[in-house]
Amino acid sequence: MSTRAGIVITGTEVLTGRVRDRNGPWLSDRLREMGIDLAHITICGDRPQDMEAQLSFLRDQGVGLVITSGGLGPTADDLTLEVVARFAGRPLELDKALERRIADILEPLMKRWENLDLQAVRAANRKQALVPAGATVIEPAGTAPGMVVPPSDGAGPTIVVLPGPPRELHAMWDQATATEAFRAAIRGATGYSQAMLRLFGIPESEIAVTLREAESRLTGFGRLEITTCLRRGEVELVARHEPGAAQTWEELRAFIAERHAGTLFSTDGSTVDLQVAELLAGRTVAAAESCTGGLMAARLTEPPGASAYVAGGAVAYANEAKVALLGVTPELIEAHGAVSAQVAEAMAAGALERFDADVAIAITGVAGPDGGTEDKPVGSVCWCAMDAGGATLARELRMPGDRAEIRDRSTTVGMHLLRRLLRGEGPPA
Amino acid sequence: MSTRAGIVITGTEVLTGRVRDRNGPWLSDRLREMGIDLAHITICGDRPQDMEAQLSFLRDQGVGLVITSGGLGPTADDLTLEVVARFAGRPLELDKALERRIADILEPLMKRWENLDLQAVRAANRKQALVPAGATVIEPAGTAPGMVVPPSDGAGPTIVVLPGPPRELHAMWDQATATEAFRAAIRGATGYSQAMLRLFGIPESEIAVTLREAESRLTGFGRLEITTCLRRGEVELVARHEPGAAQTWEELRAFIAERHAGTLFSTDGSTVDLQVAELLAGRTVAAAESCTGGLMAARLTEPPGASAYVAGGAVAYANEAKVALLGVTPELIEAHGAVSAQVAEAMAAGALERFDADVAIAITGVAGPDGGTEDKPVGSVCWCAMDAGGATLARELRMPGDRAEIRDRSTTVGMHLLRRLLRGEGPPA
Repeated sequence: MSTRAGIVITGTEVLTGRVRDRNGPWLSDRLREMGIDLAHITICGDRPQDMEAQLSFLRDQGVGLVITSGGLGPTADDLTLEVVARFAGRPLELDKALERRIADILEPLMKRWENLDLQAVRAANRKQALVPAGATVIEPAGTAPGMVVPPSDGAGPTIVVLPGPPRELHAMWDQATATEAFRAAIRGATGYSQAMLRLFGIPESEIAVTLREAESRLTGFGRLEITTCLRRGEVELVARHEPGAAQTWEELRAFIAERHAGTLFSTDGSTVDLQVAELLAGRTVAAAESCTGGLMAARLTEPPGASAYVAGGAVAYANEAKVALLGVTPELIEAHGAVSAQVAEAMAAGALERFDADVAIAITGVAGPDGGTEDKPVGSVCWCAMDAGGATLARELRMPGDRAEIRDRSTTVGMHLLRRLLRGEGPPA
Repeated sequence: MSTRAGIVITGTEVLTGRVRDRNGPWLSDRLREMGIDLAHITICGDRPQDMEAQLSFLRDQGVGLVITSGGLGPTADDLTLEVVARFAGRPLELDKALERRIADILEPLMKRWENLDLQAVRAANRKQALVPAGATVIEPAGTAPGMVVPPSDGAGPTIVVLPGPPRELHAMWDQATATEAFRAAIRGATGYSQAMLRLFGIPESEIAVTLREAESRLTGFGRLEITTCLRRGEVELVARHEPGAAQTWEELRAFIAERHAGTLFSTDGSTVDLQVAELLAGRTVAAAESCTGGLMAARLTEPPGASAYVAGGAVAYANEAKVALLGVTPELIEAHGAVSAQVAEAMAAGALERFDADVAIAITGVAGPDGGTEDKPVGSVCWCAMDAGGATLARELRMPGDRAEIRDRSTTVGMHLLRRLLRGEGPPA
């Protein structure tokens, strides 16, 4: 049987949506890799009674491991350790050696700020050096230490207390999982496997019918835990299973690959971004964008090492910029409109030339909410991918969604056109 | 007394972090506007027993209103209505009129796909027309209807069931809140007020000391619920209070404004992005970027109506692009390196000229993880904001964080330089 886990994200700024939680998803991945079954993520504000209620809920659900994130900062609203100590029945004690180590970390950091109130720094320092009796300290990656807090009575969950800033949480994770208390909490975890398929250019309902058909054909189908979802314009299918069901998963994968050959583009978890990056090896790419306003270039330059293959991009938002930067002629814009297949093609050709690139992707469209016309309503977008040999792949669609969705999904279509062009394939279905 | 609410986000894709939840934050804002106190957000996968446990938890916490998001799709893993109907003690019944309305919505949508399996579409249609007895239907904005489900025994929470896609959820919200069942659930909510201050260029610990001092000086300080957090390189301070504490909040605001005059830039909730957009009225801006790879242009073009003031941007990732697009001389790059104050200044001047813009922001840096040197380690970034009159504001910093954080926060610094330049102010503290 697998250990069930829960994640508690604290912070009024997260509960009220001012700050996006990035730790839940990250911790979720780590737990899965260890074969730990994540059952619940809960989010509460900086109110001790609400956090305590969530911890009690997780204990009542039989959760053996709880990871908390946030609430370890220097301000008075940071209450996590106080709550966890009380919940676990382990009083807080000042760890003087830890207090000194934190002071050593703070000293150089504080030089950056002029006229700093050192008294404030010292008070914060002391608060962060309080440790629940019997807990294992995880050395800080920023200024806040983490803790692994075992249940005081042998029952109840082991609680791993980590700071909110993702970089610190990531850096401290390995140390946390190496503690004796953590190993004891996850004893007996079975290794679940997870596999993912990604498809582009297909509605989710088509996958649903394929799955229903597979259910009636494949023995052991019920041992696969399958979820599908739409994400940034792609359909993702994820199957989670115990080692014994690996054969059934292989059969399902083959069944889907056969039925959806034209739209299934990833069977190994790779994203289209990664595939494009690999296909570009030795070649350079440039972007020419209007409605996406830099998002296509930003997406191409997101992976580490992108400088090896990204030449650059032109954000030709105004028509004048399309002319000056990309050599699109005013006559062409006049004749067809800035959002047209012709202008997209001219932008791609211009980007190839200006950046001396091997392949280019151009996007022009109406992201809205204003600027739509009867002929070119909001969501009308034209793409053109072109290589230096003159091969092109063009597309023209009316995208659903609001301004942010149209901009974001337009980069997904751009990525898929690049992928197909680089693979020498025809236009998508 | 305020009605307490909970939000339940369902979907294995959200629990496992493959899809980011955007509904929790949005719903949180809406509830606050209505004076409803959000206590908990919980996230579960597509497992009915986990969702049911979360609903029971919220009921046990005295929550009077629960909003669920997701799990209304056509696939078999979409289980929300089944769980909610059982929890509320209201059996599911097929609503034939609703089934026809959904069919009418689906028909034109399905024309987009060739060779579609219509049987799959019809099966999905029927599933989405099942309604818990006594619930109020919310007409679909996509294909899935929502529901407002009152407790069958008069106790327990009223449950508002909404679809996962944010655009649909947004479009259906007003209809949901107008139902009699919803109004009954929130009767008695008191209007909390919330105000926000934003500061840039100050550590969080300095705000903590200011708050401690305010606590000892201002009567009624305890009636303010104050949280602070770091977000994209800025410090946000949020105060939530009942109407009677408005005067205390005004006093605190004045106290902070006096102590932090140089770093407090927003007292009305406005973001630096919005302020820059307003300051640009009648002027045009261009971006010249290296390490941010298009993110600065994307951020400038994010607000609706950005085409009125954004001329465009040059993503000069390769040195050749800095030369070809922005007129930076190879000699300058050779002499000072691509990441230098001199090259940033030349990029800004080049952007002003190429885009014929009134103001430009240039960013060049080492986002990592590779490419750092002893002299210019990862995180070294140079900015230059320049206007057509020749006024400049430059900055050179070593940014903490990983590649994504360095890229993102570099755009925040860029925004603040633009803001100060447009206001005719000097460099930030």
